[in-house]
Amino acid sequence: MRKSKNIVVIGGGTGTYMVLSGLKRLKDVWLSAIVTMSDDGGHTGDLRDDLGVLPPGDLRQCLVALSDDRDDAWRKLFSFRFAEGSGNMSGQSVGNIILSALEKIYGDPFLALATAHRLLDVKGRVIPVTLEGTTLCAECEDGTTIRGEHNIDVSQVMRAPIKRCYFETSPRINSEATAAIQDADAVVIGPGDFWTSIAPNLIVPEIPRALRELQENGGRVFFVCNLVTKRGETDGYKASDFRNRINELISPAHIDVTIVNSAKPAQAILERYRETGEYPVEDDLPHRDPSVCRQSLISPEIGEAVSGDKIRRSLLRHHGETLAQAIQRLLPEN
Amino acid sequence: MRKSKNIVVIGGGTGTYMVLSGLKRLKDVWLSAIVTMSDDGGHTGDLRDDLGVLPPGDLRQCLVALSDDRDDAWRKLFSFRFAEGSGNMSGQSVGNIILSALEKIYGDPFLALATAHRLLDVKGRVIPVTLEGTTLCAECEDGTTIRGEHNIDVSQVMRAPIKRCYFETSPRINSEATAAIQDADAVVIGPGDFWTSIAPNLIVPEIPRALRELQENGGRVFFVCNLVTKRGETDGYKASDFRNRINELISPAHIDVTIVNSAKPAQAILERYRETGEYPVEDDLPHRDPSVCRQSLISPEIGEAVSGDKIRRSLLRHHGETLAQAIQRLLPEN
Repeated sequence: MRKSKNIVVIGGGTGTYMVLSGLKRLKDVWLSAIVTMSDDGGHTGDLRDDLGVLPPGDLRQCLVALSDDRDDAWRKLFSFRFAEGSGNMSGQSVGNIILSALEKIYGDPFLALATAHRLLDVKGRVIPVTLEGTTLCAECEDGTTIRGEHNIDVSQVMRAPIKRCYFETSPRINSEATAAIQDADAVVIGPGDFWTSIAPNLIVPEIPRALRELQENGGRVFFVCNLVTKRGETDGYKASDFRNRINELISPAHIDVTIVNSAKPAQAILERYRETGEYPVEDDLPHRDPSVCRQSLISPEIGEAVSGDKIRRSLLRHHGETLAQAIQRLLPEN
Repeated sequence: MRKSKNIVVIGGGTGTYMVLSGLKRLKDVWLSAIVTMSDDGGHTGDLRDDLGVLPPGDLRQCLVALSDDRDDAWRKLFSFRFAEGSGNMSGQSVGNIILSALEKIYGDPFLALATAHRLLDVKGRVIPVTLEGTTLCAECEDGTTIRGEHNIDVSQVMRAPIKRCYFETSPRINSEATAAIQDADAVVIGPGDFWTSIAPNLIVPEIPRALRELQENGGRVFFVCNLVTKRGETDGYKASDFRNRINELISPAHIDVTIVNSAKPAQAILERYRETGEYPVEDDLPHRDPSVCRQSLISPEIGEAVSGDKIRRSLLRHHGETLAQAIQRLLPEN
């Protein structure tokens, strides 16, 4: 009998949503999603400020991705966002409101999250990487610093490239995150906003150590490379830049396989990205590098630009099922 | 085998919540709650104005009352209200937000309500009396009129007694409401705010006709008399005033049994009511009237004063289970 595989996805935002949605369709897979608690922008940031709750945005997206499909009503409700111009409800996400309310009701974010798992009939686990909200800072090449995930994420002003990111104060690690990694057959990092979704998980000191332990036990680490660069975050990054940066962040662990899209996006979509100074990530990795998996991975559906959370940047997306099948083929044998 | 009994409760607000919570514990009972769509005050009114949805407040309270107890999480979530001073979420009811979101998602209030029944695992039906929101008006004895349920409900200014209430424009009846009444073994009217929760259901022209039909088929109509008067609505009303007013409203039907509390509330509680000009309803009905059921019906628990919806007025409440047992004894034999 084939043993069920544990796969841990690290990230947040639309990229992780697509990966989880794809992996969920595989048989004999147990999924965990590890997400950062640094989000402080938009309505998620308002809820965090007004109510003192953990930032719900990334948690919500992963919960919806992993929720059972049989009754679509809760998924629809969790994913729903009120239209702009709806008074106090303008642009508010019902899922974020529900998660925030549960935290207030139970007085404990982790009891609230466990309840959300049960209510949404989630197949797997969504795990905040830290036990508390964190303030993310970025240091640029010119020595300037940017404070707050939102400011790193949305800034359109020209600024020096980001050199590193760090937390203003050291947050406590959520031991469930390290336990999930140590227990995994494979960890999938990305795709996602590099400095605001991916790196904030990897700079928690215990995470590289857990990844190393996973690899010592025969587990594998995959990186799904982004499709496009992001203005102000990853301008000019090629596939090797992403890979090198992540290898630096997770040392002494390392990426076993980098999964790169080989299809060329439609010209019209590229034009749209170019308008905001964003370009396809160039695949400059060695042609015969056995640690690179190249495949056509672009979703034929064009993502909707939804205002609010990060989902607005998802015009060009990975095809969840194709990506999941690629990951499945790379899993270690038992 | 004993046939299951159909009981319809007409009202809204805390009184109906208590009645439903009590009746739910009886065996072999199928419950329906008919509520008015006139609520336009507080946060319910804001949602109605901002989003163009049916007023969710009374629906929410009845859904929670009838929801299954096995998993308390959804009930807690539906009943939760954010504290004041929580930014855009200040004082908002999560249940109201969820009902409003469902109406937006499904684009139809009745499909949304059916979904809410399923999600909350409701044992019974909650039925809006009309197919659309209504604007309630009241005409006072001095000829002045008051427009809007909220203005009738909360006004603390001295004003002439209310003579009658009416809708600004004729709403379409929800035929599910008349069908539920015609199919019932008994209908329970009240307790509740007379001119803002009870009367707005009874002035829908089809309702008295349905009640009459019920009585012709052997069904019974009960009225649970309020415990205290309400300032600006029912000042000076005695039990006979309530009974006569309702008999006028539901003619050609009539009340079969009026259920009156016989216990004297604690002096300290009466003092609290007196401060706002409210007094226990005097039982002036004939001593040996066989259509009066007298019993000690006061809940030993003192209600919490919750800001927001009508639940704030519930310091003195009916004891749901005792009331339900009294109603059960009055049900017609099959």
